[in-house]
Amino acid sequence: MSLARVHAFAISLDGFGTGAGQSKDLHFGHAGDRLHQWRFATQSWQQTSGSRGIDNLFALEAGAEIGAEIMGAGKWGHPGWEDDPDWKGAWGANPPFHTPVFVLTHHPRPSIEMEGGTTFHFLDASPAEALEQARKAADGDDVRIGGGPTVIRDFLAAGLVDYMSVAIVPILLGRGVRLWDGLEGLEKTYDIESVASPSGIVHVTFTRTAT
Amino acid sequence: MSLARVHAFAISLDGFGTGAGQSKDLHFGHAGDRLHQWRFATQSWQQTSGSRGIDNLFALEAGAEIGAEIMGAGKWGHPGWEDDPDWKGAWGANPPFHTPVFVLTHHPRPSIEMEGGTTFHFLDASPAEALEQARKAADGDDVRIGGGPTVIRDFLAAGLVDYMSVAIVPILLGRGVRLWDGLEGLEKTYDIESVASPSGIVHVTFTRTAT
Repeated sequence: MSLARVHAFAISLDGFGTGAGQSKDLHFGHAGDRLHQWRFATQSWQQTSGSRGIDNLFALEAGAEIGAEIMGAGKWGHPGWEDDPDWKGAWGANPPFHTPVFVLTHHPRPSIEMEGGTTFHFLDASPAEALEQARKAADGDDVRIGGGPTVIRDFLAAGLVDYMSVAIVPILLGRGVRLWDGLEGLEKTYDIESVASPSGIVHVTFTRTAT
Repeated sequence: MSLARVHAFAISLDGFGTGAGQSKDLHFGHAGDRLHQWRFATQSWQQTSGSRGIDNLFALEAGAEIGAEIMGAGKWGHPGWEDDPDWKGAWGANPPFHTPVFVLTHHPRPSIEMEGGTTFHFLDASPAEALEQARKAADGDDVRIGGGPTVIRDFLAAGLVDYMSVAIVPILLGRGVRLWDGLEGLEKTYDIESVASPSGIVHVTFTRTAT
């Protein structure tokens, strides 16, 4: 069974998965890199140095047995990317995905093959349709739902997420895009655990209960 | 120095301190008692039984060296209480406060002396004015800001809270009254720690940094 997984998705204490005012220079808006500094400090990010504690374990898990990613248009590009035919994503020539990546957008364009095994495909499709395509591409491995918050929320609302870990960062952004809107009762279909890291991050995991 | 303290204030994972649809029978609206079951399980609540772990420690701390409480009208009574001259709060003849309690309301009424040392006073005042009055009544002890979420948020926004512990309950209410709205940057003036209880509750503490 190929699972749909969300990993180490960072939100502020007040629930924002990205800040307000996203632009080409501010991929997370006024949040800057404050939602992700904990991850930059880990061995999985730094490779030859970095912490190997609980934050690192959650970061490491994000890449294991993933055969494809689904992301939203707001993760792939800044507002207005659809008018920039040369835009190839925010990660340079060799993006860190190394798998097919399905970008959900109302402005699909031809697929873009990057270095290192990443190919961006563009879909104007429902979450269920996108997951079906991504599963085929994943060839038996799992599919990561990579965000942003709107996409994760849509997949959760559609009942399509098998596992999710959320990293709550102890800052209050006050504005931006919320992860949790409209998900009343989500706890009924998941086992939820929490662990507080000495770094200040709280990792909350959602594991789908047997149905 | 008499501190203003918030203790063990329970919110859902999506940040609601009370549910939607509050009424005489549903003090917390559709949340029911789901935000507070963790507290009912503690020794401090049950007295002769109950857990003595980390949840109990946070519950116990709520009462220590408190000389007065400030609460909102929505905690003191259901919507419409101002039209009920016989309403004396939701806690029966001997409320659990045992101190002066200042109820913030645009509908003040004469003070009500209850059994056990609790007296309800009614103030149409700003947070700073209310805190000044409560401090006088507390006679050297601290003042608890008792909620609901709107009142705590107003005191935080006014920079009046010295210490706060929040208990994040792993449920998604989806609707109700949010604690965190409009508090961008709150972390700049507090040291924040988190601890996950085996019960599933995450306790987040805010200790004001020296200024």
